[in-house]
Amino acid sequence: MNCPLPLLDHDTIQLAHGAGGRLSADLIDKLIVPRFSSPELDRLEDQAVLDLPVGRLAFSTDTFVVNPIFFPGGDIGDLAINGTVNDVAMSGAEVAALSVGFVLEEGLPMADFHRILCSMEQAAVKAGVRIVTGDTKVVDRGACDKIFINTSGVGVIPDHLAMDSRSIQPGDKILLSGTLADHGMAVMTVREQLSFQAPIISDSAALNGLIREMLNVCPGIRAMRDPTRGGVATTLNEFAAASETGIRLTAQDLPVRPDVMGACEILGIDPLYVANEGKLIAVVPPGDAEAVLAAMRGHEHGRDAVILGEVIQEHPGLVTLRTGLGAERIVDMPIGEQLPRIC
Amino acid sequence: MNCPLPLLDHDTIQLAHGAGGRLSADLIDKLIVPRFSSPELDRLEDQAVLDLPVGRLAFSTDTFVVNPIFFPGGDIGDLAINGTVNDVAMSGAEVAALSVGFVLEEGLPMADFHRILCSMEQAAVKAGVRIVTGDTKVVDRGACDKIFINTSGVGVIPDHLAMDSRSIQPGDKILLSGTLADHGMAVMTVREQLSFQAPIISDSAALNGLIREMLNVCPGIRAMRDPTRGGVATTLNEFAAASETGIRLTAQDLPVRPDVMGACEILGIDPLYVANEGKLIAVVPPGDAEAVLAAMRGHEHGRDAVILGEVIQEHPGLVTLRTGLGAERIVDMPIGEQLPRIC
Repeated sequence: MNCPLPLLDHDTIQLAHGAGGRLSADLIDKLIVPRFSSPELDRLEDQAVLDLPVGRLAFSTDTFVVNPIFFPGGDIGDLAINGTVNDVAMSGAEVAALSVGFVLEEGLPMADFHRILCSMEQAAVKAGVRIVTGDTKVVDRGACDKIFINTSGVGVIPDHLAMDSRSIQPGDKILLSGTLADHGMAVMTVREQLSFQAPIISDSAALNGLIREMLNVCPGIRAMRDPTRGGVATTLNEFAAASETGIRLTAQDLPVRPDVMGACEILGIDPLYVANEGKLIAVVPPGDAEAVLAAMRGHEHGRDAVILGEVIQEHPGLVTLRTGLGAERIVDMPIGEQLPRIC
Repeated sequence: MNCPLPLLDHDTIQLAHGAGGRLSADLIDKLIVPRFSSPELDRLEDQAVLDLPVGRLAFSTDTFVVNPIFFPGGDIGDLAINGTVNDVAMSGAEVAALSVGFVLEEGLPMADFHRILCSMEQAAVKAGVRIVTGDTKVVDRGACDKIFINTSGVGVIPDHLAMDSRSIQPGDKILLSGTLADHGMAVMTVREQLSFQAPIISDSAALNGLIREMLNVCPGIRAMRDPTRGGVATTLNEFAAASETGIRLTAQDLPVRPDVMGACEILGIDPLYVANEGKLIAVVPPGDAEAVLAAMRGHEHGRDAVILGEVIQEHPGLVTLRTGLGAERIVDMPIGEQLPRIC
């Protein structure tokens, strides 16, 4: 994508770029609007006016504070787009529009900000979503760490869908769309300056296309969620709690790349607790599981999809893992600090 | 409002409160959900599902980074609610729902966060809006300044309204809902430790009720905007540019409280450039101006409303001020740094 840095008066973000005056207008007109141009955004009103078809609306928000802001496989910009697209799409909604709110630190190199904007643009185009309204604040040096990005999103949920984690039932299958822990370990290995033969790559990706394929095959999917902060363990515990069922995993089905597993072992981290940014967990009625799995494997973001486990009546609210030796251990909610500033 | 601090394990925000695990759940369940409880939020899904009537949707976002976080007349919490309610309502939309995204600094006293949450609750109740989805991040000490808050909002615009600043025409009247510069000077005087006999009070307020009254009287209001960062001067310049008309103010109509004017003079700041957080500017067809003004004066947030000026054919794109002596000067867009972290 052709994305040249426009000529601006400053090489770094100044306080005045967020002060609402001429330099703000300059920044918005020359740097931001060209990246996000849409009929709604171009009006430059305080709000976007969307002509939506009748129906239920999904609306989600997320602030991204990842450190470092650039990492193998992505940066804070595409993460912010993909994260909110995914949060909206997990409801079954077709994502209608995103908002973006920036907090920028005085002194942030303009080239870095521009690189992030370009990355957001590419991610938005790839996901087929539009950014329709935004806000930019600049704070003094030391009052934030480089850049934080909030994205919020809205989408319309088709009438025939009714996903709800409370509808999960014993017998349902737990599907995972691919390998575990890629994003979290990509960020951690950079932060900890671990070097491998090849860097671990974040899985940052928008899953709305994958979800569309899955719902075409099975509109009766019980629930879907993306296992970001807190990882798969947290998402499954939330499902078990909401539905008052038990969830049982079978260890040989845990898909983790060898390099990611190596990094987890070095750092003493369980991949079940590590953030993913391009994966989803779906709970599917047993009769539909194989068809949904096949649909997932036919999509670029579901190629490594597996059946991770099943919903059971025993020990409602608990998630357990059956190890290779036949023993069963509880996969608890994470306690305390996991991996700060991973997204 | 009865708003007691719940018993929690920690007196300050810990990194683990934002890590997605048990302490996060604790913070959300005990501190946040009780404040914002609604059927949508209580589901604790990644997105809120809204059953909306047919129609156009307004969607807005704003991140609040005000310093200090507590000031006379408000705090960062009510500011974050009122600001986004206003941004959505300025389109004529009935505000349907807000999202909230927190960035919290490690070490933020729990009591401060709680006070802010209570303030947000009160502001939301007063404005008649619900917070339906949210996100909380915690960053390491020094990576942000205490707390930043993003709010995003959606609302449905009645079919018969068509506000657009491009529809502003010569002859239209410019209405201002009250006194200038209260919010900005409330924050600045605290920050600069200026002492007056009584503190200057922020005008932070939600204006959706006022707007409803105005639109009842005159559905043909051309455009409305809240003059926040950059003040009235910026909003009027934006109107003039969008509509390719001139705007002329008459100096004797500038409503500024004496204490606010005093503070502006001490700090060398023009009140036309200072942020307001509970004021709006409306552009109204000439025949409706008196009726709209009367409706504004009948509302608690419009008691001091005035006709500030008029739209003219001359000097399109420029805003001018006719002084008491009959001279005319240009009211330009602010250049460079105004008042950082005012909202």
